[in-house]
Amino acid sequence: MKTISLLGATGSIGVQTLDIIRKHPDSFQLAAFSAGKNEQAAQNIIHEFEPALVSVMEKEAAERLQLQFPSVRILYGKEGLEAAATIAEADTLVNAVIGSVGLEPTLKAIKAKKNIAIANKETLVTAGHIVTAAAQQAGVHLLPVDSEHSAIFQSLQGEQEKNISRLILTASGGSFRDKQREELESVTVEETLNHPNWSMGAKITVDSATMMNKGLEVIEAHWLFDLPYEQIDVILHRESIIHSMVEFHDRSVMAQLGSPDMRVPIQYALTWPDRLPLPDTTRLNLAQIGRLHFQEIDFDRYRMLHLAYTAGRTGGTMPAVMNAANEEAVAAFLDRKISFLQIEEIVERTMEKHTPVQSPELEAVLEADIEARATVRSLLS
Amino acid sequence: MKTISLLGATGSIGVQTLDIIRKHPDSFQLAAFSAGKNEQAAQNIIHEFEPALVSVMEKEAAERLQLQFPSVRILYGKEGLEAAATIAEADTLVNAVIGSVGLEPTLKAIKAKKNIAIANKETLVTAGHIVTAAAQQAGVHLLPVDSEHSAIFQSLQGEQEKNISRLILTASGGSFRDKQREELESVTVEETLNHPNWSMGAKITVDSATMMNKGLEVIEAHWLFDLPYEQIDVILHRESIIHSMVEFHDRSVMAQLGSPDMRVPIQYALTWPDRLPLPDTTRLNLAQIGRLHFQEIDFDRYRMLHLAYTAGRTGGTMPAVMNAANEEAVAAFLDRKISFLQIEEIVERTMEKHTPVQSPELEAVLEADIEARATVRSLLS
Repeated sequence: MKTISLLGATGSIGVQTLDIIRKHPDSFQLAAFSAGKNEQAAQNIIHEFEPALVSVMEKEAAERLQLQFPSVRILYGKEGLEAAATIAEADTLVNAVIGSVGLEPTLKAIKAKKNIAIANKETLVTAGHIVTAAAQQAGVHLLPVDSEHSAIFQSLQGEQEKNISRLILTASGGSFRDKQREELESVTVEETLNHPNWSMGAKITVDSATMMNKGLEVIEAHWLFDLPYEQIDVILHRESIIHSMVEFHDRSVMAQLGSPDMRVPIQYALTWPDRLPLPDTTRLNLAQIGRLHFQEIDFDRYRMLHLAYTAGRTGGTMPAVMNAANEEAVAAFLDRKISFLQIEEIVERTMEKHTPVQSPELEAVLEADIEARATVRSLLS
Repeated sequence: MKTISLLGATGSIGVQTLDIIRKHPDSFQLAAFSAGKNEQAAQNIIHEFEPALVSVMEKEAAERLQLQFPSVRILYGKEGLEAAATIAEADTLVNAVIGSVGLEPTLKAIKAKKNIAIANKETLVTAGHIVTAAAQQAGVHLLPVDSEHSAIFQSLQGEQEKNISRLILTASGGSFRDKQREELESVTVEETLNHPNWSMGAKITVDSATMMNKGLEVIEAHWLFDLPYEQIDVILHRESIIHSMVEFHDRSVMAQLGSPDMRVPIQYALTWPDRLPLPDTTRLNLAQIGRLHFQEIDFDRYRMLHLAYTAGRTGGTMPAVMNAANEEAVAAFLDRKISFLQIEEIVERTMEKHTPVQSPELEAVLEADIEARATVRSLLS
């Protein structure tokens, strides 16, 4: 029996994590969760899973829930998030919050000796050096939840790190993969949110269209698998059936494939190194799919991916700056304040204005994040 | 350092095995080998690798080689093959002979506690129950060399048998994959030997065109991975880039991919569970390949595959009969005595005439083999 604390229970990954817990009551138990502003969803989760602790975003919501559920400990805000992350009953933290808010609770959970199932890209992107060092020191595992990193993780089972030649992340190309760069000038928010393969949250769907999502994954892969950027490649694969690959130095390539269903990697992170059945997911039928397509990445077309490699190679505070700038720029795009191509323009200009600090402490990372957001605001005003 | 005995050193797999040994002189050493009728090739191998023991097919050749190489033990025939297979210095036998002649030396080698890198399909097809039981009793490993079984074996590293849902073997479709069944009536030996993806020996290239090769692989997979035929599927994949796959019960599919180069699976069998570099093999470039195609198997079109499943499910002596009938029929085809489609007709009729013995001892297997060959001769006369 694994006891789980779930940060971000009402988001896309959170809901699917709850489905996994629901399907395997003998294997998993929910000890705590955090939710955003959706009070009704939080109520439903408390009813169904009876956790010991719940954290919501706002004080008023926490007070209302506390009256409804007197036997559950209801907290709110940053403190609530950290209490949920470190609850003694849990052995595993599923970090499925969106954005850099996931960083500090994850570090606290690592120090509290929890294994981390990590769906929150920003945690590793902004502070990969801190998080991986902390995990190593605490002797806990960082278990990828993203389908790409899970594919790599699965491909590495039974293998030795010294034999890895390179990681090959697959990228669907996002909503606009069939558009030329000049066609991107005028795309709308609605078009951007119409992802061909996956149904995800708005932020990540925009990141998928700009390919910042893949950029964040490249940086995350760098930290998760301890490999230089020279050994991390990206290939366009529109069907998203091969979720990613590992090439070894004998030129053998291992890959993990499947129908697009995030519950498979989520469950794998929770069952690893074992597997449990997941009978209601769609079985892969390659004959029905017929063809898988592959194409080289054009870094001029997908400039955000180029920026992410640059940020990753620069290191230090630069990935945190890139990530914060991207969060702000995507929010501005979703608020219809800027155009699609201005997202990358803002990220690039914010990165240019930043003087990176190498091997930053957590505080310097957080400062760089704040500074980057301020830069974006000044660029937008 | 692994010390290797290589049966079938002058065949396609044998030559590539020697190349692997040549590339890694610090990892591998050749203790013994067997060769067929190519005396010049045997001389060259002795010169280069300086083995302690060599077995050739005929007495006269052995005598000539003995005069040339007085310090090497030169034997011939069945006894020579068994002496090479069981030589004390070797820890691993690479069984790369063609046809059912590989069976008895392999069993002797297992009893002599050698791990078996098994490229000889017939060994498992005709006596899988005997070979796997012997290997288990002796505590030795059966390491697949075939690219398909190696792909499955690689996909199973770090995994548990209980979690396997099915094996998915890929089939290129052979020389005639774009031909309708009625077009096969008139195909020639030359057309048959022109395989689109792999350069192999004549017998295996014909088997690839009839898809008996895949049928033998299905039976081999049954024994190697201890799974019922219901859990072994075949899919058409013309590019032979995905070498085979394993689906687990969480619907995750693991696959091994690569450029067509048999040295990769040969080397993996010898380095397992580790890997060694193989720098001069072609690196997989999926973007350059562009598309991978998949198609369901039509069992009416590929009737030999249907026969193989039938033989496998029938069990007992039936796979040995099917295999012997196929060897004889393919030889008759290569001798231009029968047409391409008559190969399967002969195999089917030979199987129909056989009354299978269940759980046969080795002697009964060998008798069934002899009986089947006699049946084919009577059908041909």
